[in-house]
Amino acid sequence: MATLLLENISTLVTVAAPPGRLRRSGSEMADIGVLRDVDVAVEGEAIDWIGPAGTGRFPDAERIDCRGRTVLPGFVDSHTHIVHAGDRAHEFAMRLRGATYQEIAAAGGGILSTMRSVRESSVDEIVERSRPLVESAFRHGSTTIEAKSGYGLDTENELKLLEAIARLGEAAAPTLIPTFLGAHDFPPEHRSDHEPYIAEIIDRMIPAVAGRGLAQFCDVFSDTGYYTVEESERIFRAARDHGLRLRVHADELSSFGGAEMAARIGALSADHLLMISDPGIEAMRDADVVATLLPGTAFFLNLPYAPARRMIERGMTVALATDCNPGSNMCENMQMTLALACMGMRMTVEEAITAATLNGAAALDIAETVGSIEVGKVADMAIFTTADYPGIVYHYGVNQVMAVIKRGRFHRW
Amino acid sequence: MATLLLENISTLVTVAAPPGRLRRSGSEMADIGVLRDVDVAVEGEAIDWIGPAGTGRFPDAERIDCRGRTVLPGFVDSHTHIVHAGDRAHEFAMRLRGATYQEIAAAGGGILSTMRSVRESSVDEIVERSRPLVESAFRHGSTTIEAKSGYGLDTENELKLLEAIARLGEAAAPTLIPTFLGAHDFPPEHRSDHEPYIAEIIDRMIPAVAGRGLAQFCDVFSDTGYYTVEESERIFRAARDHGLRLRVHADELSSFGGAEMAARIGALSADHLLMISDPGIEAMRDADVVATLLPGTAFFLNLPYAPARRMIERGMTVALATDCNPGSNMCENMQMTLALACMGMRMTVEEAITAATLNGAAALDIAETVGSIEVGKVADMAIFTTADYPGIVYHYGVNQVMAVIKRGRFHRW
Repeated sequence: MATLLLENISTLVTVAAPPGRLRRSGSEMADIGVLRDVDVAVEGEAIDWIGPAGTGRFPDAERIDCRGRTVLPGFVDSHTHIVHAGDRAHEFAMRLRGATYQEIAAAGGGILSTMRSVRESSVDEIVERSRPLVESAFRHGSTTIEAKSGYGLDTENELKLLEAIARLGEAAAPTLIPTFLGAHDFPPEHRSDHEPYIAEIIDRMIPAVAGRGLAQFCDVFSDTGYYTVEESERIFRAARDHGLRLRVHADELSSFGGAEMAARIGALSADHLLMISDPGIEAMRDADVVATLLPGTAFFLNLPYAPARRMIERGMTVALATDCNPGSNMCENMQMTLALACMGMRMTVEEAITAATLNGAAALDIAETVGSIEVGKVADMAIFTTADYPGIVYHYGVNQVMAVIKRGRFHRW
Repeated sequence: MATLLLENISTLVTVAAPPGRLRRSGSEMADIGVLRDVDVAVEGEAIDWIGPAGTGRFPDAERIDCRGRTVLPGFVDSHTHIVHAGDRAHEFAMRLRGATYQEIAAAGGGILSTMRSVRESSVDEIVERSRPLVESAFRHGSTTIEAKSGYGLDTENELKLLEAIARLGEAAAPTLIPTFLGAHDFPPEHRSDHEPYIAEIIDRMIPAVAGRGLAQFCDVFSDTGYYTVEESERIFRAARDHGLRLRVHADELSSFGGAEMAARIGALSADHLLMISDPGIEAMRDADVVATLLPGTAFFLNLPYAPARRMIERGMTVALATDCNPGSNMCENMQMTLALACMGMRMTVEEAITAATLNGAAALDIAETVGSIEVGKVADMAIFTTADYPGIVYHYGVNQVMAVIKRGRFHRW
């Protein structure tokens, strides 16, 4: 018996997966499944029925009038550092005034600034700092959010950050999916000699994280000046041995072989990819690795965007995520990510919607249950003020989400 | 006797004008006047007192606690087409899918699509369509908004649009400042022969607009394929003879001599300027013409940004505005304009704030009364959730305005 009925939906975008598959790749991304003037019935936490408006069915359900509205699957933001401590707005302003990397570091900026803030904070303090951001992401339409550690950079503080993510996941409305990213950078105490820190990751952090069930994924920042391909692979092998699945920061700053490694090790997703090579594109496509693009970071750092059109034309599975983080993209709004993907990377509105929903779910291997509006799936949906879906990107820079359904429960502000 | 007290303001950005002047040019734009831990008292519609927090003065005023907040002058959005009819989201989506200009025109798109919508709408219908956008701009911090005609393209419909702007100005919270832009494009009935339409502008529209007091300014779209410099100057002379002041769409699509013309005719502002020449920069600077930059339009159309750094380095007075319009930038949020100015044009946070407040007021010649927080000026202010001003740009893509004071009246949502 339906508990909630979204009725008279002007435009329903289902983003249903193709038969027998759980993602859309290449030219399939343009096909988003648009239905007009329909109702969606929810029973408990699941989508129960989709059909024409005005049948008079489900008379006992709570009714939400969606006339003149567009309904989409809730966004799946599959790459964030949204749980953190501290604030780096002043570093951002200094950079625009022309400060060099050295001057910013001398003023206490950079990733180590966030590391210090995290180390100085309790779990509760991290939860309190991050909660408004997570709730804001939800109000902007994100119903599932991946959240990485990586600002502790020692065993105690990496575990603390993952505990904060777990605590916030219990308290906040959206689902949080935790990723262990001890290999985000090297801590200052191991900057000149990497081995002891890599050993700490492999011998202490990964067993502790996996043993306590604090993360589903292991991620590594693989790039020039960060973790080499060889170091990354050692960490990934250890993570896999402990049952963690793999995702990777790849080819952001240089064409580093990160995409090829992601294909070789069987990562679910490789992310950033601003500098991906053509062999990297082919290797990832052939190994079914999702390409997660983060255009907000390129925008924030004034870098060239990832070659999204080339990736889609070659048949890759492209996802979009915010990369929300204090150093290189302070934006939790997935609608903004879609606008940047379309304006900056020339993705179409349809491709961007697929990338931000079904393919984001594919990047987290949860597309069996979320990422599209199909009978039997979890009822995670966003209701937009616009009558048709192009308006979601066209009218950018403002929040067009007026309500969110999360696990069948209706949230409005 | 103060009626309203903003107390314990963590960061007050006054953007006070330099002594004896009503704008900030070149390197002066970096100096925004930051005060910490202060109160601002309002009496009626005006700012009455600015001083240290905690004096216990004004015990009878309504008190707004601004601890942990930043207060700025309300944004002055000095270039918009926010009052219009119709919707062009589908044209936007088509363009991203690779449609040509001809295909979009054949599908009924382009500026003539908005013209048809306006011609088919009543004054009331235009007001109803535009009002949510104007109110949204206000909720995002704009307390003064310039609004242009230019979608009627005949005497009857240009006057209708200006009447809608006047009606909305009475009904909506922000101040609307009307500009006559009959020379926005040529209507289809005069596309091959411009003279009759230019004669209609000069002989019928301008006298009617000025006679009925429906606009303060006259604007012309001066560019390749639109109005030539010679045609523009004829229209501007007629406008000036009828007491209208001048502003111009210049050098958006080509280096057309629009900036030089703006200097020659004594325009208050020349706007867009993506393709401005070095002699154009010098001519505008020497004639004190404000350079109003519209980075949202470059972003929306994927064009190169205007050379803001060069302009500021050469001492120009730079303003920022949204250009909110249905064809080339559907965004009414000035915070987004600031983010695009900083990320895309490499303006500093300080320069962007000056450009969006005091210099926007200078572009409309109202800086004597609005655009900065100074005793005696109109109490138009925006309160932001962030404790310090860099956060306004750093944390972009979301609305950080939590309340607006307009003519001394407090608005919160």
